[in-house]
Amino acid sequence: MRIAVDAVGGDYYPKNPVEGAIQAIEENDKIDILLCGPEGMIKKELSKFSYDDNRISIFDAPQIIGMNESPAKAFKTKPDSSIVRGLTVQKKGQCDAFISAGNTGALLAASTFILGKLEGVIRPTIAALYPTIKGFRLLVDAGANLEVKPEMLYQFGLMGKVYVEEVLGIENARIGLLNVGEEKEKGTEILKESYNLLDKNPNFIGNIEGRDILPAKADVFVCDGMIGNITLKFGESLVDAFQILISQGIEKNKLSDEQKQVVLKVISDVISPFDYQMVGGVPFLGVDGISLVGHGSSSAKAVKNMILNAALCVEHGVNSKIVSSLKN
Amino acid sequence: MRIAVDAVGGDYYPKNPVEGAIQAIEENDKIDILLCGPEGMIKKELSKFSYDDNRISIFDAPQIIGMNESPAKAFKTKPDSSIVRGLTVQKKGQCDAFISAGNTGALLAASTFILGKLEGVIRPTIAALYPTIKGFRLLVDAGANLEVKPEMLYQFGLMGKVYVEEVLGIENARIGLLNVGEEKEKGTEILKESYNLLDKNPNFIGNIEGRDILPAKADVFVCDGMIGNITLKFGESLVDAFQILISQGIEKNKLSDEQKQVVLKVISDVISPFDYQMVGGVPFLGVDGISLVGHGSSSAKAVKNMILNAALCVEHGVNSKIVSSLKN
Repeated sequence: MRIAVDAVGGDYYPKNPVEGAIQAIEENDKIDILLCGPEGMIKKELSKFSYDDNRISIFDAPQIIGMNESPAKAFKTKPDSSIVRGLTVQKKGQCDAFISAGNTGALLAASTFILGKLEGVIRPTIAALYPTIKGFRLLVDAGANLEVKPEMLYQFGLMGKVYVEEVLGIENARIGLLNVGEEKEKGTEILKESYNLLDKNPNFIGNIEGRDILPAKADVFVCDGMIGNITLKFGESLVDAFQILISQGIEKNKLSDEQKQVVLKVISDVISPFDYQMVGGVPFLGVDGISLVGHGSSSAKAVKNMILNAALCVEHGVNSKIVSSLKN
Repeated sequence: MRIAVDAVGGDYYPKNPVEGAIQAIEENDKIDILLCGPEGMIKKELSKFSYDDNRISIFDAPQIIGMNESPAKAFKTKPDSSIVRGLTVQKKGQCDAFISAGNTGALLAASTFILGKLEGVIRPTIAALYPTIKGFRLLVDAGANLEVKPEMLYQFGLMGKVYVEEVLGIENARIGLLNVGEEKEKGTEILKESYNLLDKNPNFIGNIEGRDILPAKADVFVCDGMIGNITLKFGESLVDAFQILISQGIEKNKLSDEQKQVVLKVISDVISPFDYQMVGGVPFLGVDGISLVGHGSSSAKAVKNMILNAALCVEHGVNSKIVSSLKN
């Protein structure tokens, strides 16, 4: 299969996308790569590596969409950007997936507009991988749809379940609806109706509360994009906050260098599940194609993981499974 | 001043409320206590302690509202409960504040109904003290108002500011509006309008994101009760989650007993800011009186802290300051 990679997405382009692409073909021999971006820049970066040049090609896209550009405007005014061109070749069937560490909003707008919606989908959504004490789980929506209808939350749950099962490899994924209490009468009218819709699915475990996220009481946490975005960014701040508190704790307890090393080793194990570099990007679910986006700060390894996850989406037929799950 | 204490609120009554009341009068000599609950039960518990009996009296209230009773129903069908009687004596001017570790919903309903709303307040709210790396800050609303209007969020911000300044002792408290991005155009229509209303206040620092909570970028985090409740319960789950991960880290690294002690000591320092027993309850803001509620699991120390916070509300004239801040 062929995966298009945004060579000029994120804070460290072209280095990290190019290096990640090379790591990906080394790890999975079914993958070929199409690097999208300014040809000269990509060629120069590629020349620093030795790699199988039958498996990596360049698709020239001279325009670059900046991380802080207005999403809607950027994708309309930059038809020759890596994002627009990369998604367009996918629509034409010349590649199977697109991944980027670039401007999330622009990528969402372009993915929805260029790839279109999957059959039956009301609104595409951004899912986010969320660290729990049992590993990553899926939070959906992570910020694409701030206001939702019950039917949308219902679809987010079903689409999330397919992704979690096919890409994260969690069997029989449990869907939970984030709410202020467990009882089905809890929450707003929208949540009560969403509960009733989701309740038809055997994998729905009911309402879950904020305290149920970290222990992974569900595998798919369903919520609107406002709650999802705030919860996601809160989660992303945990590691920094704990590292500050731990430095203070080490200071206060006047530890020896040796003791300090022991504490830091244990802490590094504790916070490793919260390392977003391991995530490998998050999917836009509900678009008629495969499109994943990663953090702007994505390392080469993060880009590689994103490519491998995109490959899993293709291999496991995530989209056709979503379409049939929404039909039931 | 005289503070009414629900002697039968929470999971450990009458022990913890009674013991907390005795600790409070020992710590602050301006406080007298009115213990509300079944007289015989309170007398028996009090007999276990030596205390100044001029400063603690009993107000018989034979009915008990359970932690899981339906709030609206409980307060209507139990007129002789500690909650209803305790708030009624406050309304009559026979005491200055009421605190309870009991049924939060029942207490909110009863406080709003019996005490009434402060002049100018649209909807009373529950605030929650939220642990950050700089100490506790205020999250408001924490679950009372799941759906809000911009004017309500505006008032939550102003009321929260008064509480934070007068009770937490933070000068010139900064108000932040929880949103999905910093720019004023971000979020739903309700949030955009709320931004414009709050922007008239010099202490408003603009939109804040989920990642800004733990570093305490603001002192008052304003949000609707849905976001607040989920964020609050997520925060309450942090300590348990980290303790599980740390046990695993200790196990994995095969630490000696001595090394284990060092790690646990540092960790205990790190998580101590997240100890909700220290909080001393959270206030209902916007009611025409002082009413605080604590966790069902409140220790005697937590009850004591709740009483001391209620005393600060009285001494510092929190309510008259709220009324005048809403008039500006």
